[in-house]
Amino acid sequence: MSDNSTLKMVPHTLKLRRLGIDTYRENVAYLHRECELYRAEGFQALSKVTVCAGERRILAVLNVVDDDDIVMPTQLGLSEEAFVKLDLEEGREVSIEHAEPPASMAAVRRKIAGERLNQQDFRDIIGDITDKRYSKTEISAFLVATGQSDMDRDEVYYLTKAMTEAGEQLSWDEPLVVDKHCIGGIPGNRTSMLVVPIVAAHGMLIPKTSSRAITSPAGTADTMEVLANVELDLGKLREIVRRHRACLAWGGTAELSPADDIMIAVERPLGIDSQGQMVSSILSKKLSAGATHLLIDIPVGPTAKVRHMRQAQHLRKLFEFVGDQFAIQLEVIITDGRQPVGCGIGPVLEARDVMQVLQNLPEAPNDLRQKALRLAGRVLEFDPDVRGGKGYSIARDILDSGRALDTMNKIIEAQGRQPTSYQPGRLVHDVLSPGDGFIVDIDNFRLAQIASFAGAPIDKGAGVDLFKKLGSRVEKGEPLYRIHAEFSSSFNFALKLCADRSGYRIGGQEQIPGAFVEF
Amino acid sequence: MSDNSTLKMVPHTLKLRRLGIDTYRENVAYLHRECELYRAEGFQALSKVTVCAGERRILAVLNVVDDDDIVMPTQLGLSEEAFVKLDLEEGREVSIEHAEPPASMAAVRRKIAGERLNQQDFRDIIGDITDKRYSKTEISAFLVATGQSDMDRDEVYYLTKAMTEAGEQLSWDEPLVVDKHCIGGIPGNRTSMLVVPIVAAHGMLIPKTSSRAITSPAGTADTMEVLANVELDLGKLREIVRRHRACLAWGGTAELSPADDIMIAVERPLGIDSQGQMVSSILSKKLSAGATHLLIDIPVGPTAKVRHMRQAQHLRKLFEFVGDQFAIQLEVIITDGRQPVGCGIGPVLEARDVMQVLQNLPEAPNDLRQKALRLAGRVLEFDPDVRGGKGYSIARDILDSGRALDTMNKIIEAQGRQPTSYQPGRLVHDVLSPGDGFIVDIDNFRLAQIASFAGAPIDKGAGVDLFKKLGSRVEKGEPLYRIHAEFSSSFNFALKLCADRSGYRIGGQEQIPGAFVEF
Repeated sequence: MSDNSTLKMVPHTLKLRRLGIDTYRENVAYLHRECELYRAEGFQALSKVTVCAGERRILAVLNVVDDDDIVMPTQLGLSEEAFVKLDLEEGREVSIEHAEPPASMAAVRRKIAGERLNQQDFRDIIGDITDKRYSKTEISAFLVATGQSDMDRDEVYYLTKAMTEAGEQLSWDEPLVVDKHCIGGIPGNRTSMLVVPIVAAHGMLIPKTSSRAITSPAGTADTMEVLANVELDLGKLREIVRRHRACLAWGGTAELSPADDIMIAVERPLGIDSQGQMVSSILSKKLSAGATHLLIDIPVGPTAKVRHMRQAQHLRKLFEFVGDQFAIQLEVIITDGRQPVGCGIGPVLEARDVMQVLQNLPEAPNDLRQKALRLAGRVLEFDPDVRGGKGYSIARDILDSGRALDTMNKIIEAQGRQPTSYQPGRLVHDVLSPGDGFIVDIDNFRLAQIASFAGAPIDKGAGVDLFKKLGSRVEKGEPLYRIHAEFSSSFNFALKLCADRSGYRIGGQEQIPGAFVEF
Repeated sequence: MSDNSTLKMVPHTLKLRRLGIDTYRENVAYLHRECELYRAEGFQALSKVTVCAGERRILAVLNVVDDDDIVMPTQLGLSEEAFVKLDLEEGREVSIEHAEPPASMAAVRRKIAGERLNQQDFRDIIGDITDKRYSKTEISAFLVATGQSDMDRDEVYYLTKAMTEAGEQLSWDEPLVVDKHCIGGIPGNRTSMLVVPIVAAHGMLIPKTSSRAITSPAGTADTMEVLANVELDLGKLREIVRRHRACLAWGGTAELSPADDIMIAVERPLGIDSQGQMVSSILSKKLSAGATHLLIDIPVGPTAKVRHMRQAQHLRKLFEFVGDQFAIQLEVIITDGRQPVGCGIGPVLEARDVMQVLQNLPEAPNDLRQKALRLAGRVLEFDPDVRGGKGYSIARDILDSGRALDTMNKIIEAQGRQPTSYQPGRLVHDVLSPGDGFIVDIDNFRLAQIASFAGAPIDKGAGVDLFKKLGSRVEKGEPLYRIHAEFSSSFNFALKLCADRSGYRIGGQEQIPGAFVEF
């Protein structure tokens, strides 16, 4: 070797710079175009580099910068999450190395070519995704490849297992740890905040962790946050659960299925959500959270995630098959998903509905109450001492007696009651009925979108408040729903969207659709 | 409506800021976390916004920034390409709107679900991609969806047509405009720089536009650039072609298939390259460039893009089918892709090989010469006056007589000869044979990777120079190839890679593989 390195001296390290840029779960490294170390890489901004400092290594997508204010030629800038992950101070010396695509991309390419993957393949892929070795385009490729020809059920099991193993595992040292989960897609469907206090009041252990909204106007964690702190560290969460048999916390701090968190960030904006991915996403989190008994709610309706009974049945079998591999006791309930549940859509409005039901107020939305009681009843029947079919009436007694409200208040106090009382957004607009008739269709997706545009869930008081539900008689000019917003820009976005299409359809009585399912 | 906008005044516009960040063919908008206009959007950095100024609108992926040095809360930053596309001065007022996913994503989701797409679907998708309405994750989804279940041949035709229509169309007002194209994957395979001067010397019109390397160590444009300027505007290109019957230019300025340029930037790093996408990518560019007669070179070998004859035949039929729809005269030639062609890999080393062949020097690599003559011969036979089977000898006469060299020199002068003569990189390392025997395998992919790591094509003199080819007898310690680099960092990257696996295998004479194809 004749490495005549006196020819051109290239520094071997760069100074680390923290760039407060949120690139949303993708590591991005910023290098100056004149950076000598970078020149070796070629001007391929999409390609990846390994950033190294001693034993620490992260993979990052490369963006090339021409502006000294962002990075100097002697610096390496990292996006916020990447900086946190590398966990070094600014100014420290780092070096870069060529990054090969993650080894498991070979398996993704095999899947694209139509092959079936085995357990080790899924383990490798999920390991690489968890370690943030995949770029967003690579994750997208994996999601489409496993979504398109749809995984067979063994593959769904392998994926679920790999995702579970990649996360933290909670254990509760009790034989019966219950949970419930809805596959989503129905605005206002905040049954968890009723099921949890009812079930806990009965004495069952239900340590409920929920997600925040990604593309919807509110997740259970967003709505619960109107009432109480939901960001609990693991020690605090355990303490609350030990004391009150329950919690209603955000699941993000527990890192139960980190690969799922990363994949969802790509999946939702793409609008792809295959059954196999849904099952592995939900079950991996529930298994990691230590559930032994799980009730899954699949709403069916023309604008729900699942639109036909045959799809619902297929999904149910898939949940059952994978659940059985893990020896979790899993029940599936198929529910009416024709329209939003309750009246409010958006954190504050949904929290109001929930509290009205817990307080047994006359204005409480009855559909939310009924659905919560039926779900709670099924969860209660996981108790060996509860006779099949008797859960509903036990749940109703707990709710009507005020014991569910007591338990909810204890949970709120334990997690930390919010000091300020949030109000519905003060910018309001009523959407009026264009004619006389009956409400024959309410588009779940459209209403969710209007609430999101109005600012939910970031603006807690933003959202939509429904005055009329399916089958209601309305007259021309009568208000159908009210839009709430906190900022005029979002308010205008929402008004524009709803002027285009309100999501409500008025028709004759004979057009009122029946439910796909009967309770 | 009771829009009490005195409650909180939110400014309706932001000041445009140019951020010199190359996000590689994806528009990115940077907004400060405290930006009031942004708050409406929700903290979803992956979601997209429409940036508006009067009639001008671009879609951009959103990155949220916490650093005032990058953007202020009253500013909107744009990545370099997005800024150029919006085409406004810094400081101008811009507004943002919610961006719906591009409408054609519905067709992509139908494709993911296994449906067949029609001509209008492909037109909509390619239109949206060309207008940069797709994020990289959406492009990745489209590529995997159309790559996985592989498009049927009508779909490949629709895609090709849509991609062609989205680009500029050159026309030459001559009945015979010839071109040749290799599907790639074989390092050192610079036959175009020989075929073009031979064919032009015969008097045929061959306006050759080529790409730069994306993941390979050199594209024809990179290698030609060692000798001459390749970035020609359309007027200059036309003038040169009119005068000399040929050019060897970079195709990027002509925007022949802008959707293809965008998709390739996602496709190559993913390492996916389906036959349907390959055919539509190649044919859309050749059709836009105005070719009437086209020769396609498909190399076959264990480390080539096409590894089996049956795949090569399938690909050939697909090229023929789509070509026939456009009434282009298309011939496919299947060639020996077992090893690199010529000796040099990397711009300077490849240019040296080409010039040695044109100058008929004794050290010129014979395999490159032979392959170029066979391809040129087939192109010459597109001339109605050339009898089938006689092209090779005409090509050889043109090369041996020095007329090809003359034509090449005229093309170089017309495009603008490089003022400096590039040299092979001065950092060198010889890779030695680990034993006695014969060369029984040379891994195209590995050699290309070593040359890339050494700095090719950005460092023009970087690359690999092969001393031994398949079937050569070697003794232990004899040099197999030499690595050249210009910078010590890249040099060390390349050495590390080649120490891990050199790409050469030594074995017994009986292990020397035969070619898949016979000339």
